[in-house]
Amino acid sequence: MSEHPWQQPHRQAAPRAGVIEPRSAVVIGTGLIGTSVALALREHGVTVWLLDRDPESARLAAGIGAGMLLPDSGAPGGPADIAVLAVPPAAVAAELARAQGRGLANCYTDVASVKALPLGQARDLQCDLTSYVPAHPLSGRERSGPAAARADLFLGRPWVICPLAENDADAISLVTGLAVACQAQPVQMSAEEHDQRVALVSHAPHVVAAAMAARLELAAPGALGLAGQGLRDVTRIAGGDPGMWRQILTANAGPAGRVLRHVAADLEQAAAALDRVAAGDELAAKDVAELLERGTAGASRIPGKRGGPARDFAVVQVIIPDRPGELARLFRAAGDAGINIEDVGIEHSPGLPVGVAELSVRPEAAAQLRSVLAAGGWPVRR
Amino acid sequence: MSEHPWQQPHRQAAPRAGVIEPRSAVVIGTGLIGTSVALALREHGVTVWLLDRDPESARLAAGIGAGMLLPDSGAPGGPADIAVLAVPPAAVAAELARAQGRGLANCYTDVASVKALPLGQARDLQCDLTSYVPAHPLSGRERSGPAAARADLFLGRPWVICPLAENDADAISLVTGLAVACQAQPVQMSAEEHDQRVALVSHAPHVVAAAMAARLELAAPGALGLAGQGLRDVTRIAGGDPGMWRQILTANAGPAGRVLRHVAADLEQAAAALDRVAAGDELAAKDVAELLERGTAGASRIPGKRGGPARDFAVVQVIIPDRPGELARLFRAAGDAGINIEDVGIEHSPGLPVGVAELSVRPEAAAQLRSVLAAGGWPVRR
Repeated sequence: MSEHPWQQPHRQAAPRAGVIEPRSAVVIGTGLIGTSVALALREHGVTVWLLDRDPESARLAAGIGAGMLLPDSGAPGGPADIAVLAVPPAAVAAELARAQGRGLANCYTDVASVKALPLGQARDLQCDLTSYVPAHPLSGRERSGPAAARADLFLGRPWVICPLAENDADAISLVTGLAVACQAQPVQMSAEEHDQRVALVSHAPHVVAAAMAARLELAAPGALGLAGQGLRDVTRIAGGDPGMWRQILTANAGPAGRVLRHVAADLEQAAAALDRVAAGDELAAKDVAELLERGTAGASRIPGKRGGPARDFAVVQVIIPDRPGELARLFRAAGDAGINIEDVGIEHSPGLPVGVAELSVRPEAAAQLRSVLAAGGWPVRR
Repeated sequence: MSEHPWQQPHRQAAPRAGVIEPRSAVVIGTGLIGTSVALALREHGVTVWLLDRDPESARLAAGIGAGMLLPDSGAPGGPADIAVLAVPPAAVAAELARAQGRGLANCYTDVASVKALPLGQARDLQCDLTSYVPAHPLSGRERSGPAAARADLFLGRPWVICPLAENDADAISLVTGLAVACQAQPVQMSAEEHDQRVALVSHAPHVVAAAMAARLELAAPGALGLAGQGLRDVTRIAGGDPGMWRQILTANAGPAGRVLRHVAADLEQAAAALDRVAAGDELAAKDVAELLERGTAGASRIPGKRGGPARDFAVVQVIIPDRPGELARLFRAAGDAGINIEDVGIEHSPGLPVGVAELSVRPEAAAQLRSVLAAGGWPVRR
């Protein structure tokens, strides 16, 4: 048992639940998440049956190797070990009732990005809660659509499981096994905890990014010419599909609204303080400074790569000609010296034939990397 | 003249001003920006004199080749062509009065990130406005400190110049020449326009990022374990130096406050709409949807790399073992096929020995890159 990835806790202690690997599964809903789950299970040798209310979508998923179409009579050979409801949050409970009514599987789970809403609706519909274990794999991607599906979408990411008091132990173990088969890291919490947490780290930030980006809609073109990487980062996720996000926010309205109310109040207070500064009261700037300091403290708590703080790496900047093969030569030089580049970002200067690569390495390797690059003829910033 | 980079407009028409390259310069203030300007001028063969109220800082800058220490008697051989005031916004006017009193140069400019404040103070101090041309090079970096200085900090970036009615034409041409010597792209606008634009694209986004990040300060550790790249992007700039940003926001309080008030109002409205949704009024979600759509529209207006929209490139995802030399091999394969990788991002899965590289290429090269990588044995996501 000790080699099971679920025993490596993701930030908090993993559950001492059993792990039962499903041998057969029905995946209901063949969008990005459902198809990715199906692909991951197929790679694990699990028999997968596919169902979508759009038969063409299910055929497409089957066509890329995600499984076989579910016959109208259900899975041949009796109920599958598990059914995965990969449908929008508001559709989970009705699909669950339908699937349980047909006896499609011995255990049921979902992948919706909110948990209290489908659970409450499942109770209202008097679904069987001994066999339904709500869950949410966090893929960490903003893309959507079955074309983006891939077997490793969940690799190393948290897979939140919300066991219910009513649950059979085997149902929890099967959902844990599903997460492990998808190479994710199972984490247990209640549906309410889950919803509050994703409101904070995902749903509210999306609206905040949108509110900042909305200011740019009517801006003078010349203003946007002065934009730098900071603005691009703050607003990047605002480019996501508004329809999908409307659904998510509607389904988690209470927790998301509470976070946003705090952010709005802090910004209104900052705006008022800046008005006082503009009117000559320079001391009012301390309210703004206090918010900036809380922001720095909050940002420093976000886990970075490899689970450590985001600032663990040293950054080496190097100027590279913008032509094929240059980055290869650079990485080869680093690799030959035994230096592992942990991350790389490239910033191009508009209209100019060079770019600046930012190479993140462990701090103890930075000096050596600078020497290696300088020896290779690249201008390194010091 | 037509080869001069200043004739390549950065998003808006460049001025039809003359360009006079300075042959000598005094740089006052040897922090990140001042030292970088000095290094760029030195690479251009300009004679540079350094001055800082902390003599040790000036000696450090001289030690890394940024120029010579300015003698107490001023530049030998008479006034320099230009003096660059690289001091905090609130210190510009006093330094200008002092430098003009000593007759250090024939023309003066500054590099402060706000323009109306130092200009107003210079008027109050009755500085000579025929020879002072306010300016602001946008380096696009959040780092600070002289150790981060580099000659190419401004390469290809906008250098805003705010000519005054009082200015001598030669003073404007010399400041334009300074920007050109630093390989930046001169853009002319008024001080008020500048301040409104940087409030929108830089100062307000910083406070917005801080307000979102501030919500994380007291969050449960388990919540932050669910964080993805979206949260990291939205809050990244909140990690910047709160002291420096307090100064910047204080100096541009009016314009920054106005942008923030709008953002706060939009977020408060979204929070109120979500409260109504939580209370059962699902139609209230349309207010949130409208904000999300404005956000998508605004985000799409931000110029991306090479001046085009940020979504011009196709992204190819490939799984790479997390060990030295792997990226080199990958880039070499792409380079050998004549494919130019425009950008690359790497996402590591915590605790696992593989990462996912996202390679941005021109859309027409994506299919070929996928083939090349698949042929090289890398698992490519399709």
